[in-house]
Amino acid sequence: MPFGEFDLIQTYFNHQAVENSNGVYLGIGDDCAILDIPVGYQLVVTTDTLVAGVHFFDDVDPYLLGYKSLAVNLSDLAAMGAKPKWTSLAITLPRVDPQWLAEFTRGFFALADKHNVTLVGGDTTKGPRSITICAKGIVKTAMALQRNAAKVDDLIVVSGIVGDAAIGLACKLKQLALSQQDVFIAVLEHTEPRIELGESLVGLASSCIDISDGLIQDLSHILTASHCSADIFVEKLPLSLAHKNALNTKQIDEKSSLNYSLNGGDDYELLFTIAQKQFKLLKNKFKTIDLTVIGCIIKQKTQQINLTKNKQTLVLPVMGWNHFKD
Amino acid sequence: MPFGEFDLIQTYFNHQAVENSNGVYLGIGDDCAILDIPVGYQLVVTTDTLVAGVHFFDDVDPYLLGYKSLAVNLSDLAAMGAKPKWTSLAITLPRVDPQWLAEFTRGFFALADKHNVTLVGGDTTKGPRSITICAKGIVKTAMALQRNAAKVDDLIVVSGIVGDAAIGLACKLKQLALSQQDVFIAVLEHTEPRIELGESLVGLASSCIDISDGLIQDLSHILTASHCSADIFVEKLPLSLAHKNALNTKQIDEKSSLNYSLNGGDDYELLFTIAQKQFKLLKNKFKTIDLTVIGCIIKQKTQQINLTKNKQTLVLPVMGWNHFKD
Repeated sequence: MPFGEFDLIQTYFNHQAVENSNGVYLGIGDDCAILDIPVGYQLVVTTDTLVAGVHFFDDVDPYLLGYKSLAVNLSDLAAMGAKPKWTSLAITLPRVDPQWLAEFTRGFFALADKHNVTLVGGDTTKGPRSITICAKGIVKTAMALQRNAAKVDDLIVVSGIVGDAAIGLACKLKQLALSQQDVFIAVLEHTEPRIELGESLVGLASSCIDISDGLIQDLSHILTASHCSADIFVEKLPLSLAHKNALNTKQIDEKSSLNYSLNGGDDYELLFTIAQKQFKLLKNKFKTIDLTVIGCIIKQKTQQINLTKNKQTLVLPVMGWNHFKD
Repeated sequence: MPFGEFDLIQTYFNHQAVENSNGVYLGIGDDCAILDIPVGYQLVVTTDTLVAGVHFFDDVDPYLLGYKSLAVNLSDLAAMGAKPKWTSLAITLPRVDPQWLAEFTRGFFALADKHNVTLVGGDTTKGPRSITICAKGIVKTAMALQRNAAKVDDLIVVSGIVGDAAIGLACKLKQLALSQQDVFIAVLEHTEPRIELGESLVGLASSCIDISDGLIQDLSHILTASHCSADIFVEKLPLSLAHKNALNTKQIDEKSSLNYSLNGGDDYELLFTIAQKQFKLLKNKFKTIDLTVIGCIIKQKTQQINLTKNKQTLVLPVMGWNHFKD
């Protein structure tokens, strides 16, 4: 085997040569990296692991996996309104596969470069394939979006489309067979974190979360932290054309459709609460992503979610993404 | 199964309740943690993964594993002279085992609490057992110990004892049978990072590294970065009494002994270079750990390590820890 651990790092991870820039005082190549946080800013950190056979299929396109591994972490930074800056990459592989690694890192750096995120450290180990990323960003002191400040009468808004990733997963698992299934699988495999939107929400939204674990479950985290309840109008949920088409042609029934949209994981959209007035300001400022009002925060202190469809009450089990539940 | 992912986090990871202290503006429980870096300090970050069957035996005492997982990361911070502050913990488990988790976290927090390190985030996923930690510390701006400033005539110093962990591993793998093998296995399984020593070296040592990959390999990183060579006097290597005993009773031959001491991994001691004058200052200031001069930096620009034993040249293959080499 021609590659040792260190050659590996040399070959694939040293794509970016950035000392003394982007706040990187010392990058890859010592025991640690050294980073400069600008005065007046706080450090924002998150970590997420992706495991083969659980979070991704072992035969997934490594380019898309590299992209997505970083994307799910940047999505958490976006949910805080942080500006992403740096990341570490710990990767465990059963063997060195230069072609796989080249594609994985090409995907990883495609997203990193897009948002000026610098790889500042990593670890390569031998074992069952998994990826753990620790992403770091900065936010102006005390300005981060949290979960605990949703207010009564705030609008509940979601970015983009919900449900397509969960439908894509069901197709991959052959639980569903759809004429347009490639469209949904593409959404599952290609995650785009809402960085610019997150940064734009700072000072406007009252709370924010990314809906990677399912809309209902993630909304419930806001309600718990903010001690309030929510009305959700499911007829407002932003569905894709492919999803609507599958509904119209009865390839998906209505109950499953709702389940994918409300409980499906892997949507890396932002869900946020915002006062009506601030929402108008936001819509003027930020026009590049669809933002849909799907409900509002109400007074009930029971921290419950009241689902209605065209004013009719709906009951749906809450079943967000949960690794150890079954 | 009574435990879901979030119950897990609640139950085992919320051991420390620390908001607005130790620089933690926002701890576990949101998409990200928010941390305050004091003005005049830089952030120091490192990440390391431990995989079952590679870095630890699957039947290892979970308390010791929890302790060691954090220790190997704090050791990297120590090598930079950083003060450890925060850590994230990404843990992948085949199933929820409350007893295992309770012991693992008890070990993890035993070390975290000892050094006032706060757990600020994590991820729990289902899959083959592995642990990835991203540890963070702070250091006064521009004062971190690096690898690139070793100077000709500097002493080469190592802390503690070398070789015992590698001997312990050989015993575990049944490559060696020693009368005192439990002593060596205990060293392998119980790692103590040299935090206080690392902090004391700031402003005194010219370069520093932790010898987790083997003394020779790690020293070679300093030589490469500093463009110099080293004389190492192997008769000076600090060996444990148990090691000397195994040598005297011919349970280990001399060549194997040297190999364990110079090429064995898992010694989390610090190797540093320091001017003679500064070393005197250090010895007066820092008396709690044995510090042994094992060689000196010389002028040769070939970045080589000249091994001698009582002034006789020795030749030994360089074979540090390398996951993908075989």
